[in-house]
Amino acid sequence: MADDERPDLDAGMVCPIPISDYPTVQLAHGGGGRLSQMLIDDMFVAAFDNPTLAQLHDGAILGIKADRLAFSTDSYVVHPLFFPGGDIGSLAIHGTVNDVAMCGARPIAISAGFIIEEGLPMADLWRIVQSMRNAANQAGVPVVTGDTKVVDRGKGDGIYINTTGIGVIDRGIEISPQRARPGDLVLLSGAIAVHGITIMSVREGLEFETRLESDSAALHTLTAAVLERGGHDVHVLRDPTRGGVASALNEIAGQAGVGIKIDEEPIPIDEEVRGACEILGFDPLYVANEGKCIAIVARESADELLQTMRGHPLGARAAIVGEVVEEHPGKVFLRSRIGGLRVVDMLSGEQLPRIC
Amino acid sequence: MADDERPDLDAGMVCPIPISDYPTVQLAHGGGGRLSQMLIDDMFVAAFDNPTLAQLHDGAILGIKADRLAFSTDSYVVHPLFFPGGDIGSLAIHGTVNDVAMCGARPIAISAGFIIEEGLPMADLWRIVQSMRNAANQAGVPVVTGDTKVVDRGKGDGIYINTTGIGVIDRGIEISPQRARPGDLVLLSGAIAVHGITIMSVREGLEFETRLESDSAALHTLTAAVLERGGHDVHVLRDPTRGGVASALNEIAGQAGVGIKIDEEPIPIDEEVRGACEILGFDPLYVANEGKCIAIVARESADELLQTMRGHPLGARAAIVGEVVEEHPGKVFLRSRIGGLRVVDMLSGEQLPRIC
Repeated sequence: MADDERPDLDAGMVCPIPISDYPTVQLAHGGGGRLSQMLIDDMFVAAFDNPTLAQLHDGAILGIKADRLAFSTDSYVVHPLFFPGGDIGSLAIHGTVNDVAMCGARPIAISAGFIIEEGLPMADLWRIVQSMRNAANQAGVPVVTGDTKVVDRGKGDGIYINTTGIGVIDRGIEISPQRARPGDLVLLSGAIAVHGITIMSVREGLEFETRLESDSAALHTLTAAVLERGGHDVHVLRDPTRGGVASALNEIAGQAGVGIKIDEEPIPIDEEVRGACEILGFDPLYVANEGKCIAIVARESADELLQTMRGHPLGARAAIVGEVVEEHPGKVFLRSRIGGLRVVDMLSGEQLPRIC
Repeated sequence: MADDERPDLDAGMVCPIPISDYPTVQLAHGGGGRLSQMLIDDMFVAAFDNPTLAQLHDGAILGIKADRLAFSTDSYVVHPLFFPGGDIGSLAIHGTVNDVAMCGARPIAISAGFIIEEGLPMADLWRIVQSMRNAANQAGVPVVTGDTKVVDRGKGDGIYINTTGIGVIDRGIEISPQRARPGDLVLLSGAIAVHGITIMSVREGLEFETRLESDSAALHTLTAAVLERGGHDVHVLRDPTRGGVASALNEIAGQAGVGIKIDEEPIPIDEEVRGACEILGFDPLYVANEGKCIAIVARESADELLQTMRGHPLGARAAIVGEVVEEHPGKVFLRSRIGGLRVVDMLSGEQLPRIC
C-alpha cells in the first residue's frame, strides 16, 4: 500500500496543539518554560499515553523481573522524513525494537529524544508523533520517557529522533556474534534491499510500475518465535540495516573469527528492487533493510527454524542463504548464480547517507 | 579553574584516527561501511573501553539485580560545544547521570548516540569523546552501547549527543514529585544559575574579573548520601536544569498539587553570577544549573539532610530555601529579601536556547 493510499490513522484526531496559534515549532518549545510544558503535556504525553510516562519524572521507573537486560540506542536522521511505508517516527520505533530483539530480548520500554529544527510545521510533528504512537502500540512496547530540544533554523533538518530501548533476556537465551561457529547455517527472513531502495527512489524521483514501499517493521515477535523454538541453538541474530546484509555478515565474521559463505540464488529479492538497484548503481547486498533479520543457527535446527520463520507473517519468504565455515576467518564469500565465488567486502565509502 | 588552564587530560594520548588522513568527519563515517567501523572500533570502543561495550552487539547486555529500574534520556545540543568548566561531552554524561539519580536510582549504564555534522574537525570529536570518557570514568558509570550518524553539512551544528541512562532503585526508596506534601522543606545543594550564565557569557563575549565556569557535575554520590541518610523521608529530587529552580519547583508544585514558598535570602548565588544576570537581563531563578540538586524532604529530617549535603564536596553550600504549603496549589511564591511576596511563574517564552 503506497503512502498516499494509507488509511488516515489519525482520522478524527485533531492536533492537540492549536495549529493556528503555533503553526510551526519555535525555539521556546524547547526552552523548559510554558511552551515546552505544553508540547510535552498536550502532545507527547497525550499521544504516548501510558501510566509510566504520566509519572512525568526526570525519567521513568520500571518494575522488572530479570537478571539480564538488553540496552540499545539509535538516532534516526532519515531523509525525507516521510516515505512510502513509513516515516521517521515509525522507523524510530521499529529500529530500536529490532535492535533490542536482536540481542535475544523481549523489548519492554523505549525512550524518545527529539531534536527539532525551529520552523518544523506543527502538523508534521503531530503526524510523526502519531506514527510513533501507532508503531509503539502495535509492537506493544510503550514510550515511557522522553526529551525535547529545539535547535535554531538551519542547524537541523526538520527533526532527528533518538530512541533507546530496554529488553529482558530470558534464561537459556545466549545471542552473540561470537557464537557463530563453523557448520552453522545462515537464515534470512525475507527479501532484501527494500527500505534503502525505497528511500533512494523517493530522493531521486524514480517511478516504478509497482510502487516500492519500505519494509520497516518490528521483528520482535518473529525473533521470539525463533528463540522459543530454537533456544540455545540460535546463535546470532542481526537486522541488516545500514550497510545491508553484506556489512552485517562481515561484522559477524570479523567478531566470531569465522568465514561466511552465502549463495546468491536463494537470497530473496523483488524484481522492482533489483531493477532499481541496477538503475541507481547499487549492489542490493549493501542496501539497508528495516524489517529483515538474519539468524545464524545450529545446522541441525535450521530446517525447523526456517519453518518457524515462514510461519510468521514477516518471515513468509525466509530462506537458508549460507553457512559458517572455518576457512578465511573474517571474510564473507558469495557464490553467484553461475557458480563464481567472490569476496563480499566491507564498503569503504558512503553508499546511502541518511537512510535511517 | 578556567577552560584554558585545565590540565590536558589527554596529554600523551593521540587521536586514534589518523587526522592527516581524516581531518574532518565525513558522511562515510556514518554510512555503515569501513569508515564507520574504523570510527567505532578505533575511537569509541577504545575510548569507552569496557567489556560490555566490547561485545559490539546491536546493543549491550547487562546483568542486573533489581526489581525497579530508572530510565532517562536527554539530547544535548549546547552551543558552543566547548565552554569553561566542560563541553558537550562531559555535560552529556553528567546530565543523564543526574536525571537517573533524581529518580532515586544508582546509575549503572549509559548509551551514547552521536549525530555529527559532516565537517566536524576530527580533533574536536576526539576531544569531546575523551571528555565523555573522563566524565564517565569519574562517575563510575560506563558507556555500554552507542550509535553514530553523520548528517550533511548545514544540517546540524557540529555535534549533538543523546545519552540515555539506566539505574537501579534500591528497596525503600520512593522518589516522585507527587510525594511533595505540605510541611516538607526544600533543600538546595548550592549556588544557582552558574551553568546558564557561563554559557551566555561565552556567547555574548562578556568578561568578568573572576572567570565564570559551568557547575556541570555528576550528582549521584550526593543523592546517594542523602538517600542513605534520609531513606523514605526524601520525597522529591530534582536537578534544576533548563528553566532553572523556578521551573523545576513549578513543575513539582503542579504535579503534587501543592504550593511552594521559597525565601530569596538563603538561596546561594555568587556575586559574579548575580552581576552577569543583571547585565544580561536574566532572573537567576530561571537560569539553568548542571550541578545542583533540589531535595524536598520531611521537615523532621531536613536539618540532618542539610548536614549530609554539606558534608559532600558538591553540597558544601547547601541551604534550606523554602517549604511546601497547602495554599495555592500549583503555585510557587518567593519572599524577597525585603519581605515582599511574589508569584514565581513558569516562563512562557524562550529564555536561554541551547543551554544544554
